[in-house]
Amino acid sequence: MIFVAVLGYGVVGSGVVEVIKKNRLSISQRAGEEIYVKRVLDIRDFNDSPDRELLTKNSDDVFNDDSIKVVVETIGGTGIAYEFTKLAISKGKHVITSNKELVATHGPELLKMAAENNVHYHFEASVGGGIPIIRPLNNCLAANEINAIAGILNGTTNYILTQMNKHGKDFNTALREAQANGYAEADPTADIEGHDACRKIAILSSIAYNEYVDYRKITTVGITKLTLADMHYAEMYGSVIKLVGRSKKVDGKIYASVGPALINKSHPLANVEDVFNAIVVRGDAIGDAMFYGRGAGKLPTASAVVADIIDVVKHEDNNGKNIWTINKEENMADSDLMETRFYIRLKVNNRDIAEDIVKNTFGSVEWIPSEIRAAKEELAFISGKEAEGVLKEKVKELTNNPQIKEVAGFIRVLED
Amino acid sequence: MIFVAVLGYGVVGSGVVEVIKKNRLSISQRAGEEIYVKRVLDIRDFNDSPDRELLTKNSDDVFNDDSIKVVVETIGGTGIAYEFTKLAISKGKHVITSNKELVATHGPELLKMAAENNVHYHFEASVGGGIPIIRPLNNCLAANEINAIAGILNGTTNYILTQMNKHGKDFNTALREAQANGYAEADPTADIEGHDACRKIAILSSIAYNEYVDYRKITTVGITKLTLADMHYAEMYGSVIKLVGRSKKVDGKIYASVGPALINKSHPLANVEDVFNAIVVRGDAIGDAMFYGRGAGKLPTASAVVADIIDVVKHEDNNGKNIWTINKEENMADSDLMETRFYIRLKVNNRDIAEDIVKNTFGSVEWIPSEIRAAKEELAFISGKEAEGVLKEKVKELTNNPQIKEVAGFIRVLED
Repeated sequence: MIFVAVLGYGVVGSGVVEVIKKNRLSISQRAGEEIYVKRVLDIRDFNDSPDRELLTKNSDDVFNDDSIKVVVETIGGTGIAYEFTKLAISKGKHVITSNKELVATHGPELLKMAAENNVHYHFEASVGGGIPIIRPLNNCLAANEINAIAGILNGTTNYILTQMNKHGKDFNTALREAQANGYAEADPTADIEGHDACRKIAILSSIAYNEYVDYRKITTVGITKLTLADMHYAEMYGSVIKLVGRSKKVDGKIYASVGPALINKSHPLANVEDVFNAIVVRGDAIGDAMFYGRGAGKLPTASAVVADIIDVVKHEDNNGKNIWTINKEENMADSDLMETRFYIRLKVNNRDIAEDIVKNTFGSVEWIPSEIRAAKEELAFISGKEAEGVLKEKVKELTNNPQIKEVAGFIRVLED
Repeated sequence: MIFVAVLGYGVVGSGVVEVIKKNRLSISQRAGEEIYVKRVLDIRDFNDSPDRELLTKNSDDVFNDDSIKVVVETIGGTGIAYEFTKLAISKGKHVITSNKELVATHGPELLKMAAENNVHYHFEASVGGGIPIIRPLNNCLAANEINAIAGILNGTTNYILTQMNKHGKDFNTALREAQANGYAEADPTADIEGHDACRKIAILSSIAYNEYVDYRKITTVGITKLTLADMHYAEMYGSVIKLVGRSKKVDGKIYASVGPALINKSHPLANVEDVFNAIVVRGDAIGDAMFYGRGAGKLPTASAVVADIIDVVKHEDNNGKNIWTINKEENMADSDLMETRFYIRLKVNNRDIAEDIVKNTFGSVEWIPSEIRAAKEELAFISGKEAEGVLKEKVKELTNNPQIKEVAGFIRVLED
């Protein structure tokens, strides 16, 4: 019998208690031992909860109870969650979390501390909700050198983009709808500005390349400036626009970025819609593999947490010793050096003159035909492949040219 | 240091040796020990091989060498591979295989024997090539009751169907092309008749439902009767036709089948093309999750085998004790009882008369509009949802009706 304590009785925490109760029999079979939630720590009152007898406001009930071997942290943030995680590890308890912020910020320290205390620190639920991705990266693809990762890592933004693309809603309408449906927070900043996706690609990259990738160094752009016009041009180009977190390792340096990207419809990520997430991993032996599923939600996320608990129970004596080394040299490449193509949309006074300016600045480009383009004195095109910094300079030249009214949008094109 | 022997130096076996050599450093890091291939057993001569010093024709070099802890079986079939597997397990060696035929046929016995001898028997590479699916089912989704599985499990047939659907080639042309490209064997029976997919869905179902699912009891239909006309009607219905292996567990009984299915284009399986495979798993907590990647090929399959080796090295003392119980009662439901809808295509003498016959037999149906239909005196429709056996009886009624020239096709519709 393994006793577990859950920190935080919010959506994920209560989901964990529910899944362990509901599937007790099959979970015991797979874990080889029975798993019981002994305590749930939360400062709030839940007098009507079916779990009220487990609830406590006293952290001693968790940390000073030696029978509790596993602590599940679902508090979130880097404050008390950080302190409790260190306390649990120092007391020889395994810790499992869904807290991407904490893992992305203090992962190296917490993994090292866990290894020193011979306990596990697992965080499958921190990326991709229920989708198994951390364990596959660590184990199933262990024979591969991972070269690149690209993922739709945030369900809120993917829901908004799907509403824009499929149903012609503008960004603000789609955002309000996401909020009404509970897919977006009252303050949606972390989602729509890409911060959430940024932490997730940092965690995935740290695992894939076996060294810490600091999320604070990842260039991150959100989706707030996307318009239906961009969606339309993407469609004319056989693509859809998604918020993509991606990274690749080239010559020992890691390129990472988060931002909207045009994805060709034949790419497996293009068909990932609504609140679903998906991650494509490129390994040198396996080629491309994709993992797809619900990226958030009570039971999917709880499913990932409980899988971590079962893993701890099965391999209690072997903590796997995953450590993210912190590279002494700068391990991140300047993302301006990454070669890419840009989709660029211009508002112009005169299309013929503007076309000449574009040709002079960008050389040969691929024009996107469109009815909007004719009607609105707009131009949209796909640039050649160049270093991102060079492309940005060229965009600036256009911005400064009085013949160009506005550079209304520029978005990366996701390469194969 | 862990010594490994590889049985069979074919595509997969040589790939395993190659991947272990190539990624030696990162594999050692992840496994926590160095992994070396000490012997490769094959009766053939490979004088020009870079691995010729490892090659032996004498099985004693493998089975009587106590330093070899892990045996990789890539021989295939249920003959000598079966004998060698039992010999290795009895000698206390862990066994890893890509041999779906052996696992589907003798899985229960071999897993039990492995548990008794306290060694691992792993077979990630037996389904989905490089795609991590067995380990995710066993571990990552361990918190879930799995309700259903549906997968595109055979790359050869998916390549053929993609050629038919996207490029308008007929079945025989597409098959010849698959053979010319090395995607299909000279004798393609096991692929195109669905036998390969059948073994794979049997293995996945055995893991998902934690009891042995005998592949010999799974109703299996191949793709040889599919025509471009069927592809066309599917397209008009917003769908594509794929060879799908699927199973579900309802009230303790397992329904399983392999056959062509109409898949709505919004379903994630619909976009899986060419030689790619994908498996959708439905769990009670996670909802739908999909695993996608290369279902065959030298390095992808080797990637899965080597991941199994690393897993054994990391958890040598803990064999996980996965056992497929053999249910004493019949655990398979009669697939004729499974409710489904059928796509049905008819050649008729008179469309008005035939429409009436269809209405009288099937009640309300969904007619698929088409130009072919008008030109060729064809009718195509989607039936209501009924038990498969009832639908087959109704199809028989049509066949026996002199007003119906031919029931030219009937195919299941994959439900959500």
